[in-house]
Formats: sequence, structure tokens, C-alpha cells
Amino acid sequence: MRVARPLNAALRLIGFTLSLIMVKYYIIRRLINVTIRYPNGKVYRQPSHSKSKPSKFANTNFGDRGMSLEEEINDSNTYYLEHEIAVIHKKPTPIQIVKVDYPNRSAAVIKEAYFKHASTTDYNGVYRGKYLDFEAKETKSKTAFPLKNFHEHQIEHMRQCLHQGGICFVIIRFASLDRLFLLKATDLFTYWDHQQDGGRKSIPLTDIEQQAAELKYHINPLIPYLDAIDNIIDEDSSSH
Amino acid sequence: MRVARPLNAALRLIGFTLSLIMVKYYIIRRLINVTIRYPNGKVYRQPSHSKSKPSKFANTNFGDRGMSLEEEINDSNTYYLEHEIAVIHKKPTPIQIVKVDYPNRSAAVIKEAYFKHASTTDYNGVYRGKYLDFEAKETKSKTAFPLKNFHEHQIEHMRQCLHQGGICFVIIRFASLDRLFLLKATDLFTYWDHQQDGGRKSIPLTDIEQQAAELKYHINPLIPYLDAIDNIIDEDSSSH
Repeated sequence: MRVARPLNAALRLIGFTLSLIMVKYYIIRRLINVTIRYPNGKVYRQPSHSKSKPSKFANTNFGDRGMSLEEEINDSNTYYLEHEIAVIHKKPTPIQIVKVDYPNRSAAVIKEAYFKHASTTDYNGVYRGKYLDFEAKETKSKTAFPLKNFHEHQIEHMRQCLHQGGICFVIIRFASLDRLFLLKATDLFTYWDHQQDGGRKSIPLTDIEQQAAELKYHINPLIPYLDAIDNIIDEDSSSH
Repeated sequence: MRVARPLNAALRLIGFTLSLIMVKYYIIRRLINVTIRYPNGKVYRQPSHSKSKPSKFANTNFGDRGMSLEEEINDSNTYYLEHEIAVIHKKPTPIQIVKVDYPNRSAAVIKEAYFKHASTTDYNGVYRGKYLDFEAKETKSKTAFPLKNFHEHQIEHMRQCLHQGGICFVIIRFASLDRLFLLKATDLFTYWDHQQDGGRKSIPLTDIEQQAAELKYHINPLIPYLDAIDNIIDEDSSSH
């Protein structure tokens, strides 16, 4: 038995070390900050899946909203789709997949992946024969909408779509005021370009009140934003 | 020291067990089949990212193609985008995220996620003021295109888009013949609906040759599919 002593000692050491690693791993996983962020530090919000469960929000009323702006728009899009008014979907969040396990024939499990920034806007689709393309953003500010909510590639994408005859806009929400606006991309570009030339880095609420269409929450759909698009389409066709 | 004996034994046991688990885990991970499949058993192909590296295929010629149909279409879309002809993107693969780790301020790591089936087609965008929506599929068959390449929800999505005035189609490739066709969604629906009523489960190549537009590989863009769309738009506008 004396010969086995060094082996015993070694095994004891391995046992201790591995146990410590496992316990440490478990504790770290439990204590970890669960806020998820993009590489640039922005907070990631898990995309909602209300789209596949339209009945969930069937009884939504004005005072009973616990949804994010994204969920509210998805809910409205579901209404428009089911009533054959428009086909507008949110694009999936782009993911860079690094490692996938294949434990059995029936399922692949992604074990390592990272969030990527989208090269386009979040929403697009078709309405009255027109291509729609837009982004939805909210702010806590009560006085102005910060332009940092948008990215250069989103602005660039909207310029490209506009050039092809698409209808491009942003839906912006002042969360603290519970006010919602639809601003045409061309109006957004004015402030964006001015900012690049050293101008202010936000759009004053007073300007938005003048230039954008205010959207009032409704029941079906929750955000009737296509009403504002009707006005844009009618303006465009009467000016041609 | 005698008192510590049971503790020693216990620690030795823990050490052994954990070591075995770790080694087994490592071996399994190394030996695992790396083919990735959707829950229905279909093989998953990692989406290409040629979009962000347009120069990669700048010197592509007719005889030097090692690309999948998806890569060829992405490459063509990059050409159309850079030359301000159209804005058409492939949608990201939809992923159901289950677990995300947040090891530090600068990066979120997805540790568990699953592939979801898309509720729409893969490609959409805007061209000449029109909304385009399509799917691209290939077959190894030399005589007919199997309808099982399409899913009910993709067909349903194209019906919805068509109803809103969008232009919907499929690009299909006979890989063994290296022949490529653009078939209007309405023509696809005829075969799809006939199949539902007990008809054949594929579209004969001879029918495709008659009804679809054959696309010939080109240099810039690699697949000039918008030429066929021009014909569809012109037909539509002359028939109205």
C-alpha cells in the first residue's frame, strides 16, 4: 500500500482542484450580472415572440400595456397580417455562430455564438404595393430625441431604399411622456447630416411635434402607424 | 491521521469521478459529428458572409465558381446594392436564444440556442419601387424540382405578399445540370395546390423550361435575375 501513497496524494489534489473549479464556476454563473450587452455596451433585449401568439394580446386596452415598443409594433404587425392589410415582419437578430453541438439526430444546439449588429433596419415589408422599411426606437428624454439611437449603417440603408422608391421612416417613442411619433426618413436625414456638420446631437421634441405624425395608441391595431403611411403615399402620388 | 482516512477515500473518489467526467466530455466533444441539422433532420449550412466582403468575388468568372446558390445570390445582391440598382438582403437565420453569458462588460456570449424555421422567405427588398420577395433552392435531380424544398409557411407568406402587390418568385437551380431558373410564385402555387390535391410532388423540368425564365450565369452580377424581374414588371404594367 505504501507504493500507492504518491498516487493517493495526486488523486486527492486533482479531486480538490476540480471540485474547487466546479464550485467556483457554479457560483460565478449564479452571481453573474444577467444584463446582456452588445459589444459596444448597449443593452440587448431578447426579441419578443408575440408574433406567433397573437391571441396573447387580443384583449389589450389603453391602460394595460406592459410591452416594449418592439412588442407593440410586432403586435400591430400581427393584426395587419391577419386582416390582410399589410405584410410587415421584424427581421431576426443577426447572430455569428461559432460552435454547434449535435447531440442526436433530432436537434442541433448552438453552444457558442455572438450578437452582430444588423446591416439594415429592423422592419420591412409590403403595403398597398409599396416597399416599407423602418426602425423603431425609444428614449427616456422628455425634451429631445437623441440621434445616437440610430447607426450610420441604418441611415445609409434607408437612403438606399428611398433611392429605390421605398417608403422609409422611424417610429420614435418618448417613454416618459408616453408619446409616439412617425418621422419620415428624409426629415431624420436633415438632423443626421446637420449633426455630422457639428450641429446638435438630438431632435427637439418641438421640431418632432411639427414635422412628424403623432401616433395615438389604439386597440386594433395597438399602434395604427399605417394610417400615417396612407398620408405619405397619398402625398407622394398627388405630387407626381 | 487515521481519522482522516475516510475523508481521503471520499476525496479520491470525487477526484476520480470528476476526472472521468471531464475526460469523457472532452472526448465526446472531439468525436462528435459536426454536421449540423435542423430539428427536422435537414442539414444546416452556415450562412455565408460574402456580403461584407464584396471584393472577394470581384474576379469571379464563369469557370471559377465554388459557391453555393445562396452565396451566388448574396454576391449578386452586393453588386446590385453597390451599383444602386436594388436593395435586396438575405434575412438572418432565426435563432431561439435560451442562455447568454456575460463574462465582461464588452461581450455577451450565447451559450445555448436553437435554430428556428423562418416564418417568411429568405430574401426581400426593393427594386424600381417594387417590393420583391423570394426564396432560392437547389436540387440534385436532373428531371424535376421536388416541391418538398418549400414549406407551407413560405408559400403562405408569398401569397400574402402577392396580395399586397409584391413581386414574389423562386430561384431554382438544377445543380447536376448547372441550370438556373426564375419561376413566378403564381406558377409555383399551381403545382403546390395540385400536390395538396393528390397531384405529383415535383415540377417536371420540361414544365419549368416552358414557364420559368432561365437565368444564365454572368460576371457582374453573377446571377442577373433582375433582368427577369424587369420582364415581369413590364408585363404587369402593360396588362393594367
